[in-house]
Amino acid sequence: MRYSLLQGGKRIRPALVFLANAFCGANDEKALAPAAAIEMIHTYSLIHDDLPPMDNDELRRGKPTCHIEFGEANAILAGDALLTLAFEVLSRPSPLYTPDAQLRMIQTLAVAAGHRGMVAGQAFDLAHEDQPLTLDQLEAMHRHKTGALISASLTLGAQAANCQNQQLLQDLSRFGRIIGLAFQVKDDLLDIEGDTLTLGKPSGSDLARNKPTYPALLGIQGAKDKLLTLQEQAHKCLHDYGANSSALLALADYIVERNH
Amino acid sequence: MRYSLLQGGKRIRPALVFLANAFCGANDEKALAPAAAIEMIHTYSLIHDDLPPMDNDELRRGKPTCHIEFGEANAILAGDALLTLAFEVLSRPSPLYTPDAQLRMIQTLAVAAGHRGMVAGQAFDLAHEDQPLTLDQLEAMHRHKTGALISASLTLGAQAANCQNQQLLQDLSRFGRIIGLAFQVKDDLLDIEGDTLTLGKPSGSDLARNKPTYPALLGIQGAKDKLLTLQEQAHKCLHDYGANSSALLALADYIVERNH
Repeated sequence: MRYSLLQGGKRIRPALVFLANAFCGANDEKALAPAAAIEMIHTYSLIHDDLPPMDNDELRRGKPTCHIEFGEANAILAGDALLTLAFEVLSRPSPLYTPDAQLRMIQTLAVAAGHRGMVAGQAFDLAHEDQPLTLDQLEAMHRHKTGALISASLTLGAQAANCQNQQLLQDLSRFGRIIGLAFQVKDDLLDIEGDTLTLGKPSGSDLARNKPTYPALLGIQGAKDKLLTLQEQAHKCLHDYGANSSALLALADYIVERNH
Repeated sequence: MRYSLLQGGKRIRPALVFLANAFCGANDEKALAPAAAIEMIHTYSLIHDDLPPMDNDELRRGKPTCHIEFGEANAILAGDALLTLAFEVLSRPSPLYTPDAQLRMIQTLAVAAGHRGMVAGQAFDLAHEDQPLTLDQLEAMHRHKTGALISASLTLGAQAANCQNQQLLQDLSRFGRIIGLAFQVKDDLLDIEGDTLTLGKPSGSDLARNKPTYPALLGIQGAKDKLLTLQEQAHKCLHDYGANSSALLALADYIVERNH
């Protein structure tokens, strides 16, 4: 559990929890539990995804994957326990939140991670291996596979701050869906244009597996254009909030401009 | 998820939730969500346990195991999604519980299922494969592997009923630990004395795998004696509650006397 969770990584989901929480005017302390919980969920999904019956990856963040280091059985258990720990962390008695706010966070995380969220995306991916996807199908897959958790990160941050402003919650959630998609388009581009050392995993692995990607469907230039459109849409989403949104927008820009 | 969850099985954990909830004087309706949640956790653990890197079982409840029917990758995902759904179910807004009671149930379930509970027992089991265990080690393993969830079932039932009586919660929890152990001793005996048709899985499989069991450590008669002692202890635990405890004690007797 520690090996995979504390390996590093970009920590984009926890960062989004902190930024959304601050965006709603709350103290950083309130972001800690949901930020930890969502990174646990993300890490469990990577551990299980890397297993031989799934993606069969041996390298993650520049290190051997969990099952290479500890064996498949222990990797399955480490993932299960991290998934469970996320909910333990969010349900601990705490003076920082109302019980209602804690329940809302737990519900948000469970729905985003479960069979109508992240797992739905992974199951769709499995069921369509080696099949050509339309752009709509590819987008639906990623909206579940990665978008759900990224969008949930923003909702969690707002819920930790006990935000009740429905318009703001909606704007944040929409912003999350857009940058979630941008994240994936950029990932696809990096897989083609990045190098193994910077990525921490072999580049060109999507291509080698014949995985459906944005560049495959739109061409490299088409994917780059789509990325810029998404970046613009993300900025528009939070336009009304002025300077208050600058940190969130900087993170959106980082997602689009990062090189790993 | 449906294939494994709705396969049948003894439903002992949900039964314990209902009985503990009624024992505390609450309406059955309140037991439904935690009963469903704990059976989801139990089922996820069976799906993952049956996988080739773990126990590599092909038969469960008389039917092909999840990974035999749907492939390993889908079985991993089905388990993950059931584990997640348990927490989704417990965190849904409900007029039946106070938010505090819901949080307590989520905490109980997460602690019992996680890295200090059920998963700890499984990891210990893995780490000691083909090694002789002392009676204390065997007991500690089962206290985590199966005892934690069985004990949690009783606590969940009481928490669903919003029980605040600490003595009663302690007595129920102790009762749960005892019948959890009895359940395991009986399982070990059935593996030797039961037949494949009644069990729904091959008998003698513990022996074939050289698994540490109570009969192996205590002899068959020793294990039977231990079972009777545990049955007596379970009855003593709830002695003070008179007729109110008769349904719970009947279930304890069923655990000891069942033939599958």
